[in-house]
Amino acid sequence: MLKNKIKSACLVIIGNEILTGRTQDKNINHIARELFKVGVLLNYVCVIPDVKKIIIKELRRLKKNFDYVITTGGIGPTHDDITAESVSIAVGREYKLHQGALRDLTRYYKKIKSELTDARKKMAYMPSGSKLIKNKVSGAPGFNIENIYVFAGIPSIVEAMMREFVKSIQNKNKFYSSSIITSLFESKIAHILEIAEKNFNDVSIGSYPIFDGRPKGVEVVISSLSNKKNAQKAKKFIQTQINKII
Amino acid sequence: MLKNKIKSACLVIIGNEILTGRTQDKNINHIARELFKVGVLLNYVCVIPDVKKIIIKELRRLKKNFDYVITTGGIGPTHDDITAESVSIAVGREYKLHQGALRDLTRYYKKIKSELTDARKKMAYMPSGSKLIKNKVSGAPGFNIENIYVFAGIPSIVEAMMREFVKSIQNKNKFYSSSIITSLFESKIAHILEIAEKNFNDVSIGSYPIFDGRPKGVEVVISSLSNKKNAQKAKKFIQTQINKII
Repeated sequence: MLKNKIKSACLVIIGNEILTGRTQDKNINHIARELFKVGVLLNYVCVIPDVKKIIIKELRRLKKNFDYVITTGGIGPTHDDITAESVSIAVGREYKLHQGALRDLTRYYKKIKSELTDARKKMAYMPSGSKLIKNKVSGAPGFNIENIYVFAGIPSIVEAMMREFVKSIQNKNKFYSSSIITSLFESKIAHILEIAEKNFNDVSIGSYPIFDGRPKGVEVVISSLSNKKNAQKAKKFIQTQINKII
Repeated sequence: MLKNKIKSACLVIIGNEILTGRTQDKNINHIARELFKVGVLLNYVCVIPDVKKIIIKELRRLKKNFDYVITTGGIGPTHDDITAESVSIAVGREYKLHQGALRDLTRYYKKIKSELTDARKKMAYMPSGSKLIKNKVSGAPGFNIENIYVFAGIPSIVEAMMREFVKSIQNKNKFYSSSIITSLFESKIAHILEIAEKNFNDVSIGSYPIFDGRPKGVEVVISSLSNKKNAQKAKKFIQTQINKII
């Protein structure tokens, strides 16, 4: 059994470029894996356009329902970077210059011998009371206010910010997940999986056909958020039953 | 100007395997591109777990707000394939055997010399009154009921079903999208993009930093759903202004 209560998370990808298909998203998968590793349950992901009204509405809806709300995208220096302002409105706080962020940006642009223009200074504006999410990849920090964690959109920066986020989580858990690969078709083992799902509490069983032009078999994923022992028993049961058919 | 009213779409990815990070989603990008090509505006994507209650709630919420709701995943033969039943409840129709789907499945399994087991027969159950979305890749069809289009989860099957969906759309449009790549940093051109965004109606301007360990420049995407002429003017304006800085 887990020592700590399972925390839930949702992820809000802010980006027209994903919705028009211009960009293949990589952040969902990375963030999902990292959350799974520390036992935080990612239960919802949405992709929304760069529209202030939509961002605000979605954040207000989601922040009530999850322990952590992570956003990616829209915190750069241009006119379409409206995430920080939208978050400020969503949480009802002043959108203002963060002195710590300004110091970081000043230091960064001095180091790379570039100017801290007004456009760049915009990246130090965020909801009043925010904590910075620093990262070594870019000068501009993300930020955390209430249960909202605001990341950049560029995957390498998201990875750096995710490392900081994971460090900050107090109560980590460990989910169990293991899989069986068989060349049998899904329909041949469906009854076994159904019995296992019913008989082993707290265990989730997923069936994923392996398809390469035509069906090649199945990967059965046995996982549990809180009951590793039962999941291991379920895995053993499924493997034994499959062996009987083969 | 467009001849046809712009239709909106949203996409519901049903899949624990995406939320745990086990699988990198490929369907969002494919569907987004294909919708963009025929001038349907993808305005929302969500990824939700294989939980009946959540699927039903989400579909009820979304089907009111979009012209098309596309779902992927959860229509196979195993216990965790609960999409068709959930859709039936969401639209308030009986979950029942579709005779046309049963015929297709019977024909398919006869052809590949395999048995139409009860588990496989489950794939012919769907909301009463559904239209089939046939495909040549797998025997099991997707289906359409009201404004909900239910696809499989396997990318090659999604592609086949998407081709059928696109064929069925009556009023296609053509969106305009073009881009400028510059080695200037975002902050250097931010003021130009802001002016362009303000001065050219119906034009959307996106700024996407090119980042490869460090900033390498920007791709500026100029697009319009309804006003190609203005978008072309905006592109010319931005290019001219950028050339002045370089």
